[in-house]
Amino acid sequence: MGAVKTKRMPRAVREQQMLDAAVRTFGQRGYMAASMDEIAELAGVSKPLVYLYLNSKEDLFTACIRREAKALVEAVRAGVRRELPADRQLWEGLRAFFTHTAQNPEGWSVLHLQARTHGEPFASEVTAMREEIVAFVTQLIVVAAREAHRDPDLPEREVAGLAEALVGAAESLAAWANATPGVTARQAAATLMNFAWAGLGNLMESRPWQPPAAATGSATAQ
Amino acid sequence: MGAVKTKRMPRAVREQQMLDAAVRTFGQRGYMAASMDEIAELAGVSKPLVYLYLNSKEDLFTACIRREAKALVEAVRAGVRRELPADRQLWEGLRAFFTHTAQNPEGWSVLHLQARTHGEPFASEVTAMREEIVAFVTQLIVVAAREAHRDPDLPEREVAGLAEALVGAAESLAAWANATPGVTARQAAATLMNFAWAGLGNLMESRPWQPPAAATGSATAQ
Repeated sequence: MGAVKTKRMPRAVREQQMLDAAVRTFGQRGYMAASMDEIAELAGVSKPLVYLYLNSKEDLFTACIRREAKALVEAVRAGVRRELPADRQLWEGLRAFFTHTAQNPEGWSVLHLQARTHGEPFASEVTAMREEIVAFVTQLIVVAAREAHRDPDLPEREVAGLAEALVGAAESLAAWANATPGVTARQAAATLMNFAWAGLGNLMESRPWQPPAAATGSATAQ
Repeated sequence: MGAVKTKRMPRAVREQQMLDAAVRTFGQRGYMAASMDEIAELAGVSKPLVYLYLNSKEDLFTACIRREAKALVEAVRAGVRRELPADRQLWEGLRAFFTHTAQNPEGWSVLHLQARTHGEPFASEVTAMREEIVAFVTQLIVVAAREAHRDPDLPEREVAGLAEALVGAAESLAAWANATPGVTARQAAATLMNFAWAGLGNLMESRPWQPPAAATGSATAQ
């Protein structure tokens, strides 16, 4: 029955099935260990057909990264109402992010673990996605600073660093939440808001944590 | 002159030179692209000698991960005075962390990017190191909660999530700081303290960021 059905499917649908199988296999086994045989079998098609449609293991992996990155960015965008205050936008964005990574653990593994470390062109595909998310967070921090101050005094570099920290925290939490039974997307998002926004909130009010001026050179590593 | 000098070196010293060359090469080129020829040349020894001492590319890479992980954990430990309050310990730990990653960018690249995604046994080497650092941060958060409350009410899972978020933020910031000219270790540490501790501080005082109860189901991704 599978064979007949498969033959009548349009190319685009079949390609998506191959990508589904590939994301699952790459996400579970890693890029190196994943075999084209396994991917073809999981997709219910022959290996030559996978090569015919997606060309090579490299191109198939690139197609997976591109599809998963696009889906993640679209999920975050769709989750955020841009007319809300900055902290609410961040909350909605985080919830959408953690919901999506929880529902697509293999896709997240492809993006977070696999794609970043097998050289070009894979790494730059993910870098582009990450930069888009960092830009979104950066802009939220800038808006929040503007709302809090008449004369915003967060230097550009500080904002950039805060955005990097927040995105890194979200990446780490998503991997942890997926590996920890019973952690919901909402809990992960609330943890990060607790962690980040209360701190950013203080910062917006010009109440940063104060580094101890006297102790900088002593027992700390230079 | 190099040859004579090399011949008289004790094995341990020569091994360290090979590891220095290997960390540099793996960190800059990535594990797959790095060649044993290049590593041997950079170490100023013959390729057979590298194989004689370190056995294989896999074993050499494992030795690099182990050495760099140990050095990083020791640097953080050495940078922290355990008798200080929790926020000061975190500050000192972060400064030591960012100082070490800034001074050893290739070592950090090996740990953060290369080691995590080439399967076992590499990944578990880094996981062990990361777990040690997460345990240290977790314990600081628990101590801080105990200092802030007579009856600490941060659930264990929330503490675990916060520690994951903080470590993920630090990892992301270290990569960003190394890629951004002029960002010092102190600035990176201060950014993260601003981001994290002010937020954690609020949390300790039972002032978490409040998720909007009413808006949870509407425009957010389910």
